[in-house]
Amino acid sequence: MKLLITGFAGFVSRHFLNLLSVQDESFEIIGIDRNIPGFGFNKYNNVTCKVIQTDLKDSDFIFEIIESFSPEYILHFAAASSVQYSWQHPAKSFLNNNAIFFALLDAVKRSGKNIRVLSTGSSDVYGNSANKNLILREDCIADPANPYAAGKASQEMIAKIYINSFGLDIIQTRSFTHFGAYQKDSFVLAKFAKELTLIKKGKKTSTLVTGNIDVVRDMTDVRDVVNAYYGLLKRGKSGEVYNVCSGQGRSLRSVIELMLQQLEISVDLQLDESLLRKGEILSIIGSNEKIYTLTKWKPEIVFEKAIADLLDYWNKHVS
Amino acid sequence: MKLLITGFAGFVSRHFLNLLSVQDESFEIIGIDRNIPGFGFNKYNNVTCKVIQTDLKDSDFIFEIIESFSPEYILHFAAASSVQYSWQHPAKSFLNNNAIFFALLDAVKRSGKNIRVLSTGSSDVYGNSANKNLILREDCIADPANPYAAGKASQEMIAKIYINSFGLDIIQTRSFTHFGAYQKDSFVLAKFAKELTLIKKGKKTSTLVTGNIDVVRDMTDVRDVVNAYYGLLKRGKSGEVYNVCSGQGRSLRSVIELMLQQLEISVDLQLDESLLRKGEILSIIGSNEKIYTLTKWKPEIVFEKAIADLLDYWNKHVS
Repeated sequence: MKLLITGFAGFVSRHFLNLLSVQDESFEIIGIDRNIPGFGFNKYNNVTCKVIQTDLKDSDFIFEIIESFSPEYILHFAAASSVQYSWQHPAKSFLNNNAIFFALLDAVKRSGKNIRVLSTGSSDVYGNSANKNLILREDCIADPANPYAAGKASQEMIAKIYINSFGLDIIQTRSFTHFGAYQKDSFVLAKFAKELTLIKKGKKTSTLVTGNIDVVRDMTDVRDVVNAYYGLLKRGKSGEVYNVCSGQGRSLRSVIELMLQQLEISVDLQLDESLLRKGEILSIIGSNEKIYTLTKWKPEIVFEKAIADLLDYWNKHVS
Repeated sequence: MKLLITGFAGFVSRHFLNLLSVQDESFEIIGIDRNIPGFGFNKYNNVTCKVIQTDLKDSDFIFEIIESFSPEYILHFAAASSVQYSWQHPAKSFLNNNAIFFALLDAVKRSGKNIRVLSTGSSDVYGNSANKNLILREDCIADPANPYAAGKASQEMIAKIYINSFGLDIIQTRSFTHFGAYQKDSFVLAKFAKELTLIKKGKKTSTLVTGNIDVVRDMTDVRDVVNAYYGLLKRGKSGEVYNVCSGQGRSLRSVIELMLQQLEISVDLQLDESLLRKGEILSIIGSNEKIYTLTKWKPEIVFEKAIADLLDYWNKHVS
């Protein structure tokens, strides 16, 4: 199977490669990223990779890659994916994510090749809809409440136009909160895991600074998430959007408590008012019925184990 | 009243200035455009204008203008406004329109000033919704079917975030098809009026090449449209979106017939298949109940008179 992966240096891509490396078939991959990945991955078991460092906005160059490589699938992971960054740089976040998506789709369209694209999106597109729906299904309307989410909702609109008017084969996800090894510590679960590990090791005073930790999110281990992507790549229906989520809500507070319990420490929690955001969505929980019906996918890793593995990762990576 | 107008060199802005010039109050205006307007308008009756030629994407410069001028109102007319252009250059159209909107809103936010922004949008955001709703009301969902429309739907999402999270005072329109003197002949009614005028004058063979002229649109004279904008600027409710439309649908074919009748000519119609577009929305008709309830605005110019004036304009401007 020949795949082109954008955002190749990112943490999701890394877990996706791990998943492929234990499959029965073999994979030939070109990975594109602005940055050289922090991991070597030229040949590993059944997976052969070539990494090309370029800005995805260079549609002509992406077109050349597609022409010569002829991928059967494209996994579009590339994105400025931090909500917090999007509050600091709304235009940059929004415009970057849509510029790279246009560049990619235009290259695919121009090639005329029959390529399936998996466009990874975000549960953040539901935004204010989550205040009206206890459980978010794919037919709930998009009503984004932050600039990152507006960018991802736009990406869905653009995809739909390229599907309907140009006949492209695109499957989209609305991926809910996911976490795991290698995720940057600007994301909240990685941040908590890292800081609590530092506290455990006595490298930091035992105070954890947080935003609103009573928000409820639907959280899935990234190793389960990439499994969902693999299934959708093979069996997703073109033009459809799929939630990728556990169906269960947990407060950030309960996750911190779980981490404290596993680490056998206690901390003082300190609220940083600057991290509070007017209009923040209090609860975001999805239904995974649609993807389950199609692919029988649901998260397999028990949440406690997922958090234990995350803490283990940070234990090995901070000193 | 102090106003900043973007897209100042465009045809809507020109009609808006004409409207202001017959009001009882006086106006101080800064107009911003990438292009120098094709009309002089420094001082006319009660209206004083200064034109600044710049790219609206330069948010720092827009901020400086806002700081020194302190406008009470901003009319945001600037946009790549052609659907056809957006099919040819999807990324450029989409990214330009959102980049300039971000630059403008960021400048307003940074200034901290209490400025009302009128963001002009498009009925095109309804897109596929028009296939499900005979008459489009503001609570119909946005489901854009072309890249220009996706850009305008994104603009609405961005506006909502700046209203809810940063407290900006923004009123938005969904303006349906409008036409009148000075509109570029890349827009369909201007194109028909110009070509039929050329035929009338014997400067062109009597064949009119068209796309699908059985599509039905809700069409309003631009002089009525700017009247709606003026009312919304003064009495619109922050955060709300308003249709600007007649409430009546007309086929392009019926408008061509009206033009032929007024010009007292006949032509051969010739279909150009390259102008047909898969997924084109066949009927787009809006309800103007919301704006009428608030401002008592409805179109005043009889359609036959509006078309006669358009033909008169082209009669004077082609030779």
